[in-house]
Amino acid sequence: MSGARFVDADRLMTLATRAFVAVGVNEEHARLTSAILVEGDMMGLGTHGVLRIPSYTERLRNRGMNPEAVISVDRRAPSLALVNGDNGLGPAAGSIALNAALEMVTETGIAYIGCSASNHFGALAPYGLKACEAGYVMISGTNASTTMAPFGGKEARIGNNPFGVAAPIPGGMHFILDMAVSVAARGKIRMAAEEGTAIPESWAVDKNGLLTTDPTEALAGFLLPVGGHKGSGMSMAIDILSGVITGGKFLTGIRSWTADPDARSDIGHFFILIDPARLVGRDTFDAAMTEFRDIVQSTPAATPSAPVMLPGQREQERRAQAMEKGISIPEKLLAQIESLTDGKMPARKRDK
Amino acid sequence: MSGARFVDADRLMTLATRAFVAVGVNEEHARLTSAILVEGDMMGLGTHGVLRIPSYTERLRNRGMNPEAVISVDRRAPSLALVNGDNGLGPAAGSIALNAALEMVTETGIAYIGCSASNHFGALAPYGLKACEAGYVMISGTNASTTMAPFGGKEARIGNNPFGVAAPIPGGMHFILDMAVSVAARGKIRMAAEEGTAIPESWAVDKNGLLTTDPTEALAGFLLPVGGHKGSGMSMAIDILSGVITGGKFLTGIRSWTADPDARSDIGHFFILIDPARLVGRDTFDAAMTEFRDIVQSTPAATPSAPVMLPGQREQERRAQAMEKGISIPEKLLAQIESLTDGKMPARKRDK
Repeated sequence: MSGARFVDADRLMTLATRAFVAVGVNEEHARLTSAILVEGDMMGLGTHGVLRIPSYTERLRNRGMNPEAVISVDRRAPSLALVNGDNGLGPAAGSIALNAALEMVTETGIAYIGCSASNHFGALAPYGLKACEAGYVMISGTNASTTMAPFGGKEARIGNNPFGVAAPIPGGMHFILDMAVSVAARGKIRMAAEEGTAIPESWAVDKNGLLTTDPTEALAGFLLPVGGHKGSGMSMAIDILSGVITGGKFLTGIRSWTADPDARSDIGHFFILIDPARLVGRDTFDAAMTEFRDIVQSTPAATPSAPVMLPGQREQERRAQAMEKGISIPEKLLAQIESLTDGKMPARKRDK
Repeated sequence: MSGARFVDADRLMTLATRAFVAVGVNEEHARLTSAILVEGDMMGLGTHGVLRIPSYTERLRNRGMNPEAVISVDRRAPSLALVNGDNGLGPAAGSIALNAALEMVTETGIAYIGCSASNHFGALAPYGLKACEAGYVMISGTNASTTMAPFGGKEARIGNNPFGVAAPIPGGMHFILDMAVSVAARGKIRMAAEEGTAIPESWAVDKNGLLTTDPTEALAGFLLPVGGHKGSGMSMAIDILSGVITGGKFLTGIRSWTADPDARSDIGHFFILIDPARLVGRDTFDAAMTEFRDIVQSTPAATPSAPVMLPGQREQERRAQAMEKGISIPEKLLAQIESLTDGKMPARKRDK
């Protein structure tokens, strides 16, 4: 069994960037994408980290994604803009969108930016961290291919869409909520199936839309949204903000990149940024968020050894560790990424 | 046992308005509040309807709420404003805020408005309906007194905060999501306790923060948020948008109007409005929302007799019925509201 190695963020950035450049992506998009993925790994969100490089690059080679995408920002009003991802790398489109939103919010105090014709764009938490570091409150989301049935249904017509809210706290441990709308991740059900154990009744329905505790039937069926009709409604709401008002695709219009790797995914995202300094004022906001954090963290814990945490706290603690010790990456994955850069080193001065 | 009577919305509006005017509320605030409560009843949301009039008026008499509130709008930027509720009626503050947001979004295409020093403001759905009728997409929420423990905690420090997203659909059956973040309402647990039946393990924790199926232990404990850490994080996120960036109170700073009827609640709300016409364009948006509705509603149902519905569909169907047949109000409640208007008829021309 192969182990894991600790890799510096800089080294991982360089490797990731080269892997994307090697399949024809321009330096800017390659760097923006690598930054989001490496940030995901630093936060311990390995499923949304450099693990994605092999599948991203494969899709770029097969033209399921467009390596030569021209990602454009169309400002529709002082605080409104749309981004056309041109079927390029999702984290590049997402980062270009967030950067444009950061410019708008600096001017006007609020910004909505929606992105269509995009792809899987990594985890929301890295974008939330960036908004917090700039001092803004962020609401964001993305749609995804349809893996869940709407509440009461028995056909996959909604995505397990992530939703995020982030708010800066002085001292650098920010409030970063990044949640998908399912009760449990599909990976947990796969694990139960392998172990032959039952799953809780709240996790999934079978292919007929009926509750099941059998992980095999669950895998042939659908993940359940949190709170039944609540999570189902949230998925749709995120889809409207990501896919409908952006002029993009939504619901069954989104294609699965695993089932259909050569086809466009047509995923959409959105960011809303708000400047708290223009509302309550920076000092009052900072004091309130500090108090907010302290009230949450000082809640007596149900299990004394597991103190109550802020959303995103564990991820930011892992990030601090990764900055010190490096990022733990499975050796096999590292070798795979290295192989994707082989003989395709870009001629950049800093590498000489 | 007394029955229920069907009452016209207009008649209920007049009665409700008089009940508020009778305790010294001005005509405008009385009408705005009555409109939200009556709309709640029309949508079948009886717990957020005129049932609240006795407790609202009692608090106004006891000065727990301020009958002479001066509710002011402070525009901080073209698309940003704050409302000071002056501890007046919540639905009056909420409606004044939504109206100001509707003016802003007409000008700029987006608006955030936050409201502090307010009170219980009814259900979110009536506000969502109003935004939809004006053609805008709405994101909204409110904080509430602390009835839930943050995930992993065993002390009430977060509210069962409602969150809403609404989007207009041509034809008048709009998308209106209005959800609180708990798995189940407290009323359902109370019912199980009365019936002596166990509750599902996912609903509540006991006073030590541990899972329980005993409804009595659950009532002494806390409601569980949907998805554990997810609903817990959502409650906090809604609180930041309602209570922190508005300069208001949050978390344990909110007072319970049932436990402490003479004290200020200091509740906060927020509305974000977005004009889809300025983004994707009205025609494209309308066509997309129509398709969105059709995809959801045509999902094969798990139980054929229970077709898949849009969020808010049931409420809007009830509303259509209420417009035809009147609103069903328990006779006892109706008599109580009538008694609150006794001898205090405002001298208005139209009543002569």
